[in-house]
Amino acid sequence: MYLTQGLHRAVQQHPDAVMTVFGNRTRTFAEVADRVARFAAALRAHGVAPGDRVAMLALNSDRYHEYLLAVPWADAVLNPVNIRWSPVEIAYSLRDSGTRVLLVDDAFAPMIPALREAAPDLGTVIHTGDGPTPGDAVSYEDLVAGHDPVPDARRGGDALAGLFYTGGTTGHPKGVMLSHANLMVSAMGLLSTGYLFGPGTRCLHAAPMFHLADLAAWNATTTAGGTHVIVPAFDPVAVMQAIATHGATDALLVPVMIQILIDHPQITEHDLTSLRTVLYGASPIAQAVLERAMKAFPNAAFTQAYGMTELSPVATLLSPDDHRRTERLRAAGRAAPHSEVRIVDAEDREVARGTVGEIVARGGHVMLGYWEQPEATAAAVRDGWMHTGDGGFMDDEGYVHVVDRIKDMIVSGGENVYLAEVENALAAHPAVASCAVIGVPDDEWGERVHAVVVLRPGQTLTAEELREHAKTLIAGYKAPRSAEFVDALPVSAAGKILKRELRAVHWAGRERQIH
Amino acid sequence: MYLTQGLHRAVQQHPDAVMTVFGNRTRTFAEVADRVARFAAALRAHGVAPGDRVAMLALNSDRYHEYLLAVPWADAVLNPVNIRWSPVEIAYSLRDSGTRVLLVDDAFAPMIPALREAAPDLGTVIHTGDGPTPGDAVSYEDLVAGHDPVPDARRGGDALAGLFYTGGTTGHPKGVMLSHANLMVSAMGLLSTGYLFGPGTRCLHAAPMFHLADLAAWNATTTAGGTHVIVPAFDPVAVMQAIATHGATDALLVPVMIQILIDHPQITEHDLTSLRTVLYGASPIAQAVLERAMKAFPNAAFTQAYGMTELSPVATLLSPDDHRRTERLRAAGRAAPHSEVRIVDAEDREVARGTVGEIVARGGHVMLGYWEQPEATAAAVRDGWMHTGDGGFMDDEGYVHVVDRIKDMIVSGGENVYLAEVENALAAHPAVASCAVIGVPDDEWGERVHAVVVLRPGQTLTAEELREHAKTLIAGYKAPRSAEFVDALPVSAAGKILKRELRAVHWAGRERQIH
Repeated sequence: MYLTQGLHRAVQQHPDAVMTVFGNRTRTFAEVADRVARFAAALRAHGVAPGDRVAMLALNSDRYHEYLLAVPWADAVLNPVNIRWSPVEIAYSLRDSGTRVLLVDDAFAPMIPALREAAPDLGTVIHTGDGPTPGDAVSYEDLVAGHDPVPDARRGGDALAGLFYTGGTTGHPKGVMLSHANLMVSAMGLLSTGYLFGPGTRCLHAAPMFHLADLAAWNATTTAGGTHVIVPAFDPVAVMQAIATHGATDALLVPVMIQILIDHPQITEHDLTSLRTVLYGASPIAQAVLERAMKAFPNAAFTQAYGMTELSPVATLLSPDDHRRTERLRAAGRAAPHSEVRIVDAEDREVARGTVGEIVARGGHVMLGYWEQPEATAAAVRDGWMHTGDGGFMDDEGYVHVVDRIKDMIVSGGENVYLAEVENALAAHPAVASCAVIGVPDDEWGERVHAVVVLRPGQTLTAEELREHAKTLIAGYKAPRSAEFVDALPVSAAGKILKRELRAVHWAGRERQIH
Repeated sequence: MYLTQGLHRAVQQHPDAVMTVFGNRTRTFAEVADRVARFAAALRAHGVAPGDRVAMLALNSDRYHEYLLAVPWADAVLNPVNIRWSPVEIAYSLRDSGTRVLLVDDAFAPMIPALREAAPDLGTVIHTGDGPTPGDAVSYEDLVAGHDPVPDARRGGDALAGLFYTGGTTGHPKGVMLSHANLMVSAMGLLSTGYLFGPGTRCLHAAPMFHLADLAAWNATTTAGGTHVIVPAFDPVAVMQAIATHGATDALLVPVMIQILIDHPQITEHDLTSLRTVLYGASPIAQAVLERAMKAFPNAAFTQAYGMTELSPVATLLSPDDHRRTERLRAAGRAAPHSEVRIVDAEDREVARGTVGEIVARGGHVMLGYWEQPEATAAAVRDGWMHTGDGGFMDDEGYVHVVDRIKDMIVSGGENVYLAEVENALAAHPAVASCAVIGVPDDEWGERVHAVVVLRPGQTLTAEELREHAKTLIAGYKAPRSAEFVDALPVSAAGKILKRELRAVHWAGRERQIH
């Protein structure tokens, strides 16, 4: 099992079909294989030895795709950099991983001097942009043109394929070590469902390619011999145009991207009928949003994935069938075809159905460990089970409900309030574009249901009107007692709504974040 | 990755659904898991230590299914015995593998004394039949009832999962060592196609479960959480009844079994509409047979698999789509989603398309090696590529054509004759039930096209009539110049027609088997 397997197969079976579409540029499978073999030669020529880390700091592009194939081809190790990070954080990850070769595009070229200063071991910087090559960098295209192809190292199995740094909320980022087998098991697990990345797949890359969510979709597509339709970054118009122009069939999105798309005034102007699969992650989807999304993408089946980088990254899937039952939408799905999932107590004993505990997962997709952090690895992976740190419970049919991560429930005035239910109700209001509901401290109620709302353009709404609307749909104690109206919700690099940030202003100075 | 993963997932998601159907006996996923955990405890109690081999010599049954799960559960190693072998051959494989625990059913219980004599290290013999337990054996059901469940060892990845003895034509059988990862990659590769063992699969086991062809189907079904419909051995009426009664959806068959089914007078009396997939292997299917099979199984899509035990066992697949194009039926398909395949020369250099060479394959499905035969392993697996020993070529679209194995071509009077084409023509004759075409030595022609034919009941035919019929469909030089009429064709344990045996009588005493 090795990351380049699907490329070889595709070149053998349909060399002249298109593998990548990026703007006006298309490349066939045969062209990509040739370029990858040349760039792998260039990496070797620049001193990249087997096992060396090669980083990339860039927006999405067809060259990002080539990087993901050329590094394993050269028997080196991927290190895709989080583009939302500050130079200080990025430099930390480059130093921590001992990375000496870095690829940078036009968007991030200005960061090179700061990175060189903060990561002095950084050697060759390769410029993958279409603009002028910075003075101390070498041109990616010159390297491809200037080297003869080398054979694929074809190293795989348990060999390290990549380091994927995850930003912890405390302390420094950790480098998650994933093997070729980890990533290939993940790809085949997704394909094994039979409803993701099927024959003739044309995968849209709108989420950042450095993130393992998109990288897993990329790898499943590559394994299936499919085509990649790539946009530099999420932009609703670019996404709609890419789908309409290039007939994208499968897309990885996060709910906030889906929300932005369905709220966009041009959504009805583009032919989005080619889309047959929307795979979304990071958070559940509100019923109201799903219904509107199903209208916007009339041929698309929806699948939710739950997991984390350490699980390559999928542990559970909520299938298209599950999406036909409203009560299922609260769940994160069931164990994927390549995974085992359990809920355990602090002593790692499996708890009864319905009881909240820690979500753990086991299988060929569990990371090798954290880079140079054996203690953190031993704490996270015990007896083969990856401990996610997420709280959740499992229902009688094996569906995992993630409780902690989505801050599913608060206790207000002694009553349990499930926030997703509240968000669902608020999203049904015609003036609401998107919203997040959190618990904030309240002297009377302990915790108070609080809404943070983005209105649609030209609409107005008061907190009281919002509360009255909610009460028409849900119990009065669940309706928000306060609300704030904002221009946008804070989202993570992966597109997750950062409820932590929303809560922070309300909980500042308090010792615990629940009452 | 471990063989019991799918069982755990299914117990979590649908414990009360039926996992096995065998005669009048059905067992749910929860029951199977409980019985497996108890039998694993019994194996431990009988001295089976981690890594010990546990053999089974039996017809298909639900207890064979439990054996396949209980042995890995106990951290032991499977050793499914070829039921067509003689006691001498079986005893050799038990001695070679150091097996001390053997499961035997009613059909093979009479062989116990001979095996004990020839394999003196054999200790516990466990009787899995429904008849009386032989004197020196212990009852499987007593063991299951008498032990409390133990937790699953959950050992997997590159750990040895089973020894699968292959009968070489020369010398002693070799034990093919397959890891959990090998077998799980194989299962996920089949599922990744999207057209095999899909949602709601009910797999029919009519081919012998000891053989890796059926075992791979078993493992894919188990991984997908499906149901197993098991018949003791291939019998056309039992197969038709099992499909009709239990709604089997997917079946692994070999062409000769398909032939027997479609020739059976009762074929139209059973409702076979539940069958949606027929996976066949071992040899290509004749166009005439395929057309009749498509009528007999009106909802079934056909897939051909090519491979060998050492490849866990699938390397290439001829998809249902490929079956819609007549000219494709001569091929063995293209690299499966988990495999890379190539044609190489004697120096392991890839040859040009259309050139015959050795078929080699690479990927996570390549065996760990031959048991205690490092030299044979090194000769077979070079630079990660398993050398099949089969000759073949690849066409421009990446389809592998197996030449040697199917004795595809002979040279007769200076003309190339493709035997599959001749068989195809003969099979179209209404009086022909099945046939095999071979080359036999001929003083005039060098090699002469010779047909071995099984007629349908009540039909008669002469060699000359057969030749005249063939000439209406193919060139005169391809039509058989001689024919013999037999009651049945010799087939291997896996259901392959043994052309070697057919040829042997004609080529006896000659130094080379081609002219």
